[in-house]
Amino acid sequence: MTETQQPITRLVEPMTLKGFRDYLPEEMIARNRVVETIRRVYEKYGFVPIDTPVLEYLVTLIGTGGEETNKQLFRLESPESEPIAMRFDLTVPFARLIAQYPDKVKLPFRRYHIGPVFRADKPGPGRYRQFTQFDIDAAGSDSVAVDAEVIAAMCEALGELGLSREDGAPEYRIQVNSRKLMDALLEDGGVLNPETQKHVLRVIDKLPKVGMENVRKELGPGRIDESGDPIRGVGLNSETIERLVTFVSSTGKSRLGVVEAVEALLAPSETTTRALAEMRELAACLDSLGVSESEAVFDPSLARGLDYYTGPIFEAVLPGVPQIGSIMGGGRYDQLAHRFLDGRIPATGASIGLDRLMDGLAAVGQGRAPLTNVQAFVVAMKGIPTQELLKVASELRGEGIPTEVFMGDPKAGMKDQLSHANAREIPVAIMLGPDELSAGKISVKNLIVGKEQREGIGDREGYVKAGKVGQVTVARTELVGTVKQMLES
Amino acid sequence: MTETQQPITRLVEPMTLKGFRDYLPEEMIARNRVVETIRRVYEKYGFVPIDTPVLEYLVTLIGTGGEETNKQLFRLESPESEPIAMRFDLTVPFARLIAQYPDKVKLPFRRYHIGPVFRADKPGPGRYRQFTQFDIDAAGSDSVAVDAEVIAAMCEALGELGLSREDGAPEYRIQVNSRKLMDALLEDGGVLNPETQKHVLRVIDKLPKVGMENVRKELGPGRIDESGDPIRGVGLNSETIERLVTFVSSTGKSRLGVVEAVEALLAPSETTTRALAEMRELAACLDSLGVSESEAVFDPSLARGLDYYTGPIFEAVLPGVPQIGSIMGGGRYDQLAHRFLDGRIPATGASIGLDRLMDGLAAVGQGRAPLTNVQAFVVAMKGIPTQELLKVASELRGEGIPTEVFMGDPKAGMKDQLSHANAREIPVAIMLGPDELSAGKISVKNLIVGKEQREGIGDREGYVKAGKVGQVTVARTELVGTVKQMLES
Repeated sequence: MTETQQPITRLVEPMTLKGFRDYLPEEMIARNRVVETIRRVYEKYGFVPIDTPVLEYLVTLIGTGGEETNKQLFRLESPESEPIAMRFDLTVPFARLIAQYPDKVKLPFRRYHIGPVFRADKPGPGRYRQFTQFDIDAAGSDSVAVDAEVIAAMCEALGELGLSREDGAPEYRIQVNSRKLMDALLEDGGVLNPETQKHVLRVIDKLPKVGMENVRKELGPGRIDESGDPIRGVGLNSETIERLVTFVSSTGKSRLGVVEAVEALLAPSETTTRALAEMRELAACLDSLGVSESEAVFDPSLARGLDYYTGPIFEAVLPGVPQIGSIMGGGRYDQLAHRFLDGRIPATGASIGLDRLMDGLAAVGQGRAPLTNVQAFVVAMKGIPTQELLKVASELRGEGIPTEVFMGDPKAGMKDQLSHANAREIPVAIMLGPDELSAGKISVKNLIVGKEQREGIGDREGYVKAGKVGQVTVARTELVGTVKQMLES
Repeated sequence: MTETQQPITRLVEPMTLKGFRDYLPEEMIARNRVVETIRRVYEKYGFVPIDTPVLEYLVTLIGTGGEETNKQLFRLESPESEPIAMRFDLTVPFARLIAQYPDKVKLPFRRYHIGPVFRADKPGPGRYRQFTQFDIDAAGSDSVAVDAEVIAAMCEALGELGLSREDGAPEYRIQVNSRKLMDALLEDGGVLNPETQKHVLRVIDKLPKVGMENVRKELGPGRIDESGDPIRGVGLNSETIERLVTFVSSTGKSRLGVVEAVEALLAPSETTTRALAEMRELAACLDSLGVSESEAVFDPSLARGLDYYTGPIFEAVLPGVPQIGSIMGGGRYDQLAHRFLDGRIPATGASIGLDRLMDGLAAVGQGRAPLTNVQAFVVAMKGIPTQELLKVASELRGEGIPTEVFMGDPKAGMKDQLSHANAREIPVAIMLGPDELSAGKISVKNLIVGKEQREGIGDREGYVKAGKVGQVTVARTELVGTVKQMLES
């Protein structure tokens, strides 16, 4: 091809941005179902929806998530040349909203919010620069009962998503701890310097990843990591380390059992008394809400985000698939809107990373959805006016059955059309040939049975016994009933 | 206050970006209902969901929407310093997706997509820089039957949104025209220069705003607008102008009637024959799909986006509230993915601007939703352990009743708490005092009846006759039944 023969316009290569992703129908149908299920549960717990823009003034966002988050902001300029940025979470916009509409948003206020957030992070497996968060938060209440309600809502949502074993036991577990309990522990261990406290919490947070022996070393002089690099230790003495280790290893047969085990370890103090009272109250509230001991456990080793949270903290995991990590997390933070307001507004809430949750559901064999919502596929047969096909579709849709009429390549034969339907696992096909049309009849084909037969799963006799039909020709007036019956079988 | 007394940290003023908006629960509940209603209808018509990122490579977007849109792009840089931008519609991402996943996305393909789009436009009443689009498009089919299905889906969606008068007549109207018909008209009128053709279409598009007399002038030598500025005319001769005016004024008693009226005006030609055949086929398909003559009308004056569309075009309006303008629009465009692919991919679809639709619904008294989803409000009375309140909530939620326990200011009395519930129009309140608790009883209060009584709408006798109860005290075991009965009354 000589240069003059090249087309004048250059084609653009269709590409998704690095670190971003598209959702094809198969994934979206599954995601929509999960969102609907959780939304229904959260609404039962009194949470109501809000939405806020994807873009915020830079000054609203900057500094709210620490240095790391500042660097990860997608920044741009407004048409008025003001510095703006894409939101990196849904909590800062919630705080702004609470502060901005004091007349319209009366406290206490429970809201849920689903939306995309953006972080210019290093992309990797399961790490995207745009991801969907699904948050619930309750603002304006100091009561630990609200923390219990958030935990109960998380449990019910996970249960409704099908995360229960066959014997009814939950496949999820909410681990619960409290910042106040950690404070009591650190005070008790003589760790009073705030920087040292944070260092200790960061080390304990690594426990599930690195194991207790490494935590011991890192609380002391330090250790060498797997790549041979030295990790600086906190430098605690061995007595304090052992007290900490015993504490974070505390278990009990029940939530109150854990509280008792911890109580036995801690010297009495005001901090201790307050922390234990909070945990006892939380345990009682969880009982009242019907949250079982196997759904939510007290775990003194949980140390996530403790420099941010001020009361109970919680995290949901799927013990059967530990590699997925936490699928929901949250806790109490008593300075919701301090960036915008002088008054203190206590809040508690939980956040779901939808992509991580979908990964978790897939890992335990849940969260699958059909490839399409379409349930009936009308084959376009030669010699049949399009209007006849549309009438069939219209009739089925009138009964609530999602229906598609094949309208692709007019030369596509029946086999091609059925393979188009089969590829998307549409369960039923409708065929109307010229002879049938003149005789007032119509054929209905069960594509699932057909697939099973092709794959040698079922046999003709079995289907007949089970009342499953491969294909039937019925009177035109019996179309809807026949399709419904086939979809239910 | 001297300077040294000022607090060290400055508060940030909570503000939404100029041209952007927040959605409080009242608005979000209404929006969610509308989205769910439309989504259900679109799924019945075989459309399946997809989602794509908010950000795209600049090269993907630039030039797809003309000079105006290029200027309105929110542009930024990726972490890899590539030029990127926020999407301005959902059609370009759809075209990219079709081109990018030829193995996964088999044609014909029908998808719906709901999401935010961004335009750095001049903000104004009802004009925002971020707004939600809700699109359906079908790619890979040349059949005018698909256009008919898009129109039918629009009609059904609008009907399901409650846009019908009491006598059953629709409050919406879909106006339908065709680019092919316009081409025939222009050819027939001897307007052959493409630039002149576009000019004529732009002038006709102004008809609803400026009226026929001004259109006449603008098709001719030009006119002076209301602010005294001259508007350049197309410069057609008066015979051609009259032909055009007669054409765009064509009406008929039915869709076929309009086709006949237009046919009588046009000289026979290949273009005319093709255009008329398309309109006849479209009319027949609409009939088959049960779209009534009052829902979708053929209107030769409709000229929206005709330099983009290639076949049928359509637009939904609410004749009762003309100031709202078009609430949905779409048409056939036969170059979906030409930016990315060599092959021709025909497509047709419709787009809803959700904010405009919500305005339209509000204007005709539809689209309202309750201020909250919460249906039962548990008052926190003095001397009652929180756990008892949680048990009540848990029981009601177990029956699917969205319930909130008051957990605000612990000093708030019953009156304050009930006014918190009343302000959000929660229908039922539950009260459990110490005496009731020990007697195994509980009180249930109908807050709607209370409100009506306060406002003098109802009277005691009327309520008793209607079986409506203001407040009852029942056995604790009858709680759920009593609340359900009250919610249904």
